[in-house]
Amino acid sequence: MIPGTSVAGMIRDVEICEVGPRDGLQMLKGIMLTEKKKAWISALAAAGLPEIEVGSFVPPKLLPQMADAAEIVAHSRTLGSLKVAVLAPNAKGAIRAIEAGAHKITMPLSVSRSHSLANVRKTPDEMIGEIRESARLRGESPSRPIIEAGLSTAFGCTIEGSVAGSEVVRLAVAAIEAGADEVGLADTTGMANPQQIKRVIADVRREIGDRLTGVHLHNTYGLGLANALAAYDAGIRTFDSSQAGLGGCPYAPGASGNVVTEDLVYMFESMGVRTGIDIGKLAEARRIVTEAFPDEPVYGHVPAVGLPKYFSPA
Amino acid sequence: MIPGTSVAGMIRDVEICEVGPRDGLQMLKGIMLTEKKKAWISALAAAGLPEIEVGSFVPPKLLPQMADAAEIVAHSRTLGSLKVAVLAPNAKGAIRAIEAGAHKITMPLSVSRSHSLANVRKTPDEMIGEIRESARLRGESPSRPIIEAGLSTAFGCTIEGSVAGSEVVRLAVAAIEAGADEVGLADTTGMANPQQIKRVIADVRREIGDRLTGVHLHNTYGLGLANALAAYDAGIRTFDSSQAGLGGCPYAPGASGNVVTEDLVYMFESMGVRTGIDIGKLAEARRIVTEAFPDEPVYGHVPAVGLPKYFSPA
Repeated sequence: MIPGTSVAGMIRDVEICEVGPRDGLQMLKGIMLTEKKKAWISALAAAGLPEIEVGSFVPPKLLPQMADAAEIVAHSRTLGSLKVAVLAPNAKGAIRAIEAGAHKITMPLSVSRSHSLANVRKTPDEMIGEIRESARLRGESPSRPIIEAGLSTAFGCTIEGSVAGSEVVRLAVAAIEAGADEVGLADTTGMANPQQIKRVIADVRREIGDRLTGVHLHNTYGLGLANALAAYDAGIRTFDSSQAGLGGCPYAPGASGNVVTEDLVYMFESMGVRTGIDIGKLAEARRIVTEAFPDEPVYGHVPAVGLPKYFSPA
Repeated sequence: MIPGTSVAGMIRDVEICEVGPRDGLQMLKGIMLTEKKKAWISALAAAGLPEIEVGSFVPPKLLPQMADAAEIVAHSRTLGSLKVAVLAPNAKGAIRAIEAGAHKITMPLSVSRSHSLANVRKTPDEMIGEIRESARLRGESPSRPIIEAGLSTAFGCTIEGSVAGSEVVRLAVAAIEAGADEVGLADTTGMANPQQIKRVIADVRREIGDRLTGVHLHNTYGLGLANALAAYDAGIRTFDSSQAGLGGCPYAPGASGNVVTEDLVYMFESMGVRTGIDIGKLAEARRIVTEAFPDEPVYGHVPAVGLPKYFSPA
């Protein structure tokens, strides 16, 4: 295998999307140098990650960590069959993402109105308008990237508390009607529990079927892997996670840490569910992050204790 | 409610057995003073724990931390409806446990021969003999405590690697035939995965039905809660765990940390599964341990970040 390319033709039972370069880095005080980011993304692709959320098209003055998004997308597109995903909070960002050549654009759509206003300064229904406009622009573009509506705070909001399942369903349907190709459910605040995960997934599936593709889970209260297991049992096959558990949401106080990629990959592989990811190479990619941010807290059981003796992946 | 008593008549969907005073304390370098232990166990009972493994009847020269087991059992028996459980590695220990008045005696039966020899200096089949003798002695006692065979290394062994599911089933059947009332499955090394948990539980259930009562899970590779969820989905309703995640096994190198009681209770309560445990009072009990051992590592997401805002238990 050529170093720096992702593994084409690899058989996978689940797709793990690494969101560290976006969700992780945007939360850190420090800025990762563009060349380091490229090295990290290359190492992740070489480890077999099929999809990486490589950056965010937001105004650089708001998130200087993401100022190099277009350059990072260009680099990521050279990495074999890697699906290059980005975040765009509005149609303006989506235009930049389309021009940069992203394969997938995730647009955050908070189910909680308060979180939506804090995060993107728009109501959920105004965000549906942004998705509609982005889908129209995408339709006119030659590259035609996938647009995913990422339903934030789908399982609870630190500002509003519980979130109505009916509102999750309503916004999922509205996003698809507005032209989104896919819907993902994000537990932005880590408040989800396994029972709720199964219920909400079933409710959303009933309306939009396989347009519900993935979940984005946080580990705030330690339920990250249990929730991932529940989502898998409910039929989900695409999972966001972040290497070393970096990330969280600046507008969801107390919420910190995505599900740790290393532990999620280990859980699936130990179950015989193929991720197509090489755990050894994942550790090499982790080293790039931990060396770049020696003072940041990093998470993960498997990175801390190593694989069990005699462990053989799926 | 009278402080220091457990809650009688509390409706519970699952029974959580706190093993910290046994599995936790036996792993620590320091010794908890008898009066502190009593205070901790009282606080745990007051928090609503229905069952506590309060000590181990092993030779005091091997485990000086457990030298006060009989006194601790006597104290624990005063705590309302609390089920007072202990560990005994052989018939000699079982005699002492019966005399002390324990309600339940767990006898460790390693599925891995190497682990069995290291842990109790007997082969698994020799341990079946100890269970038979203990069951006979129990039959002659006025108190007639429950005898549980705790199948250690039931999901993997750090010495031998994988463990045959057929051997788990064989030993579970042999233990029941020898007179054990119940069988528990212990992931001593943390090597279990959710798929395996479901498969082994189903296999053992097929042979001994509801005599398989509980699971004892470790969090070595971070899968503790996911495995607990899988066991719950497979029909298990009794779960061992340890406050602050204390504990492990001295003869299973690298294995450390039981499932954290606080996080396990939170997971179930968030799912609407009633534990009968008061999370606030659990935090008070935790303080007794963390103050007694300020230098020991303690675990738990919920203790670290607090309950989610607006959280209401099941």
